[in-house]
Amino acid sequence: MDFEKLSAYKKLQELAKNPPDLTKNSVFNIDRIKNFVAKSKDYTLFYAGERVNEDIIKTLFELAKEASALEKMQNMQNGEIVNFIRGFPSENRAALHTATRDFFSGDKKSKTANEAKALAYAEYEKLKRFLAEIETFDRFQDLIMIGIGGSDLGPYANFLALAHLIKKGRRAFFINNIDPDNLHRVIESANLDKTLVAVVSKSGNTLETMTNEAFLRDCFVKAGLDPRKHFVAVTGEGSPMDDKSLYLDTFYIWDWIGGRFSSTSMVGGVLLGFAFGMEIFTEFLKGASEMDHAALNPNLSENIPLLGALLSIWNRNFLHYETLAVIPYSQALSRFPAHFQQLSMESNGKHIDKEGKRTPFQTGMIIWGEPGTNAQHSFFQLLHQGVDPIPIEFIGFIESQSRFDFIFNGTTSQEKLLSNLLAQSISLATGKKSDNPNKEFDGNRPSHILMAEQLTPKTLGELLAYFEHKTAFEGFIWNINSFDQEGVQLGKVVAEKIIDQFASERKKEFNEGYGVAKAYLELFKKV
Amino acid sequence: MDFEKLSAYKKLQELAKNPPDLTKNSVFNIDRIKNFVAKSKDYTLFYAGERVNEDIIKTLFELAKEASALEKMQNMQNGEIVNFIRGFPSENRAALHTATRDFFSGDKKSKTANEAKALAYAEYEKLKRFLAEIETFDRFQDLIMIGIGGSDLGPYANFLALAHLIKKGRRAFFINNIDPDNLHRVIESANLDKTLVAVVSKSGNTLETMTNEAFLRDCFVKAGLDPRKHFVAVTGEGSPMDDKSLYLDTFYIWDWIGGRFSSTSMVGGVLLGFAFGMEIFTEFLKGASEMDHAALNPNLSENIPLLGALLSIWNRNFLHYETLAVIPYSQALSRFPAHFQQLSMESNGKHIDKEGKRTPFQTGMIIWGEPGTNAQHSFFQLLHQGVDPIPIEFIGFIESQSRFDFIFNGTTSQEKLLSNLLAQSISLATGKKSDNPNKEFDGNRPSHILMAEQLTPKTLGELLAYFEHKTAFEGFIWNINSFDQEGVQLGKVVAEKIIDQFASERKKEFNEGYGVAKAYLELFKKV
Repeated sequence: MDFEKLSAYKKLQELAKNPPDLTKNSVFNIDRIKNFVAKSKDYTLFYAGERVNEDIIKTLFELAKEASALEKMQNMQNGEIVNFIRGFPSENRAALHTATRDFFSGDKKSKTANEAKALAYAEYEKLKRFLAEIETFDRFQDLIMIGIGGSDLGPYANFLALAHLIKKGRRAFFINNIDPDNLHRVIESANLDKTLVAVVSKSGNTLETMTNEAFLRDCFVKAGLDPRKHFVAVTGEGSPMDDKSLYLDTFYIWDWIGGRFSSTSMVGGVLLGFAFGMEIFTEFLKGASEMDHAALNPNLSENIPLLGALLSIWNRNFLHYETLAVIPYSQALSRFPAHFQQLSMESNGKHIDKEGKRTPFQTGMIIWGEPGTNAQHSFFQLLHQGVDPIPIEFIGFIESQSRFDFIFNGTTSQEKLLSNLLAQSISLATGKKSDNPNKEFDGNRPSHILMAEQLTPKTLGELLAYFEHKTAFEGFIWNINSFDQEGVQLGKVVAEKIIDQFASERKKEFNEGYGVAKAYLELFKKV
Repeated sequence: MDFEKLSAYKKLQELAKNPPDLTKNSVFNIDRIKNFVAKSKDYTLFYAGERVNEDIIKTLFELAKEASALEKMQNMQNGEIVNFIRGFPSENRAALHTATRDFFSGDKKSKTANEAKALAYAEYEKLKRFLAEIETFDRFQDLIMIGIGGSDLGPYANFLALAHLIKKGRRAFFINNIDPDNLHRVIESANLDKTLVAVVSKSGNTLETMTNEAFLRDCFVKAGLDPRKHFVAVTGEGSPMDDKSLYLDTFYIWDWIGGRFSSTSMVGGVLLGFAFGMEIFTEFLKGASEMDHAALNPNLSENIPLLGALLSIWNRNFLHYETLAVIPYSQALSRFPAHFQQLSMESNGKHIDKEGKRTPFQTGMIIWGEPGTNAQHSFFQLLHQGVDPIPIEFIGFIESQSRFDFIFNGTTSQEKLLSNLLAQSISLATGKKSDNPNKEFDGNRPSHILMAEQLTPKTLGELLAYFEHKTAFEGFIWNINSFDQEGVQLGKVVAEKIIDQFASERKKEFNEGYGVAKAYLELFKKV
């Protein structure tokens, strides 16, 4: 059923004409704050700051039911084909990333899901053995991870989130960009002799990753080292990279794991296992798996991924806001917005539905953000006094990770951090009148707060899965395919043509070239 | 004169009804690419990918003239009061950041600008002496910079951009967030005995910076070290931090330097001078100063900050796009989008004009972005196939910084990087038809490319000033005050109330509390 034809859609359009006015004390009050709360596992979602009321929430939930959102989530976790466009050639795959961490409950699953889980678990066990072996000989101190996009952003964000737990003497470096300065800076720092290299590409033919692998192998050879004793592969079974003669070991993923959903597979596992050990990686998987279960909960107040998706849809399709700022009040989550940016925008930045029809409604929003309180001293001016409201997702924790703190002027830094988070959410909602127009705040700027006790490996896993499922629920309700990325193909094809032109030039061969690109290249020579 | 009443505004509204269709070969062709080029100093701006034609550019330039944009830039650089709201209490200050680097030409300037320059130059000389002295005794190896917002983002982005040039044995760490985990991670890494600490706050009373300074001083004392022998201050003359008895040395800034415009003052100077040496810092200043001159050039094709601002205004006010993605094809510029995000959004995220009237038009856009090619594997799906076009500013360099490269499949990594940049700009403009709706690209997605030979200290300075002046020009044309930030005040006031509540609780004193915040805090206890 088309999103815009759902009967709840019409009702929501009506309700959007008169959303609650949060600048009124009679609206944004203590009762409201107590009532607009939901909880899944270790996270509580406070959404009094959104421009919703009980009627709106009820109708949003109707929308989810009409769109069969929960059934679709169940189907996804059962390994049904969810990645398709009906009537057109498309990937026709499952999206079974939940199987890569479904190691903790005895739940009955579909045969497909059980098979996927068994495959994933075998890799998990392989990693455990591999890490134990290199540990015994203290073979490696540094890890260089080569990967880009889904094979970089999630793993890196998760690594930073737990960096205080790194095993003594170990370090991690990241080569993602084709920019040769990226690789250069890394090899200036790493100790190649004691370096493990993880090359991560599901397809085994990603331009950046293949190039950086060849480049780095050359550096090893020039340093008198044998790459086969340092490089491991993380790739799809049967991909061009699946050649055991070239690697110390090989870890598999499969076509039912999308890059941006691969953080809990071996794509994230080799890095996190090496840096923190298998116990911490396992806790992380456990957290993700618990949130997978929460995403199946039919009670909206216990299913925050679904609620989060519905709040996004309210802001996007009914209040017509184009972006969502994700602001973690935790420096450890500094790269989490970049991971979620990919997850959401690559999944839902689509303009056709699953029937191949143009969507007459808005889909995926622009996701952006930086940690608080830093962001308060950066772009919050615009959030408070810019022309248009910008929805915000705040993330916070009651305790710091280190519990290393200091009382200054009567409070700890952690208390000051939490106070600021709250103050922003409240003042964006309430605004403030003033005789000086430059000190006037309109208010009614929507936000919600996702809060847990502490950022640990387990709550990090929950947070990751929260965002994965929120993204999937949005796609289910819009009836779009969140699991392919055809939009990145055209740029690749054109880039290949220009690369060919460079190659011809180097060989002094004639190349007709790609007209406009050739013109640019001529002009570049005069820069 | 109000922006929307300028006669060019009406003309542009008409022109916006029929912008050029870049998907047509007859429009987006070789001639266009050659014709839509401008150049200032080391940068060339290629804007064939924007939805403009000669008529539109001419009319945008008329708009700039009607708004007296160049005179306002001249006035700013002369030190006239540009930071004000007429008829209401406001800061009433100059914005003379250009004086902090105007050390390279004998140009005649106003008396005010000359006085400012003399003050700034004295601090520059002081820094040179200070660095020479600590060098002689090899006193410090590590630098910890404590600062937030304008005292962090620009300096950090610039530091990363040149990190390959760091002096042997030196390292830099950053404490910005009030989150105590930020400080904790830094002191786990730095060697305090050999650490210089730069505390940076113009006001001398920034909550985060004062707290982190006190916290870090305590760590020094507990390590048996005397903070007065390690800490230097960068602050406004006469601020609460201006107390020489507490610091090894003190460097000044003044109320005519806004935080987000302070990268070339001692705010950036202490870090860049320590890390790279005065010669490199001086080259950086020289580049910025050259772009300051370019911003006064009355020829639009030689004034890229003005042209950049006009393209933004075209996209924002006439084609009604809400955001701008800044995508540097240079890993070294990975944090530049975050700096420019602050610069632009804090400056132009305003809803009143300089007369205190509501703007009936859109002002500052949301700025966001990540480096390419990484971003291609992240959110470019949405840029190509999302529902709405998103304007993009690409930044690229012909050569890499290190010139350390590798030929793989016939081309260098740098050639592959440039090919990708071009491919994206071209394919976003042209799009592609297809029988498969999932492989269809609408095109007409606007972008321009800013290109220089290489990212050096000098071209980094130029790039910084380009963004500063682009931002200022937008404000001049909109007739808003780009130099204050009243929008950050309300959150601060509310945060103080909540912090008081935490302090009372710690002292077991009664505190009536801030109603809704109190409710949240009660609920947090149950998280």
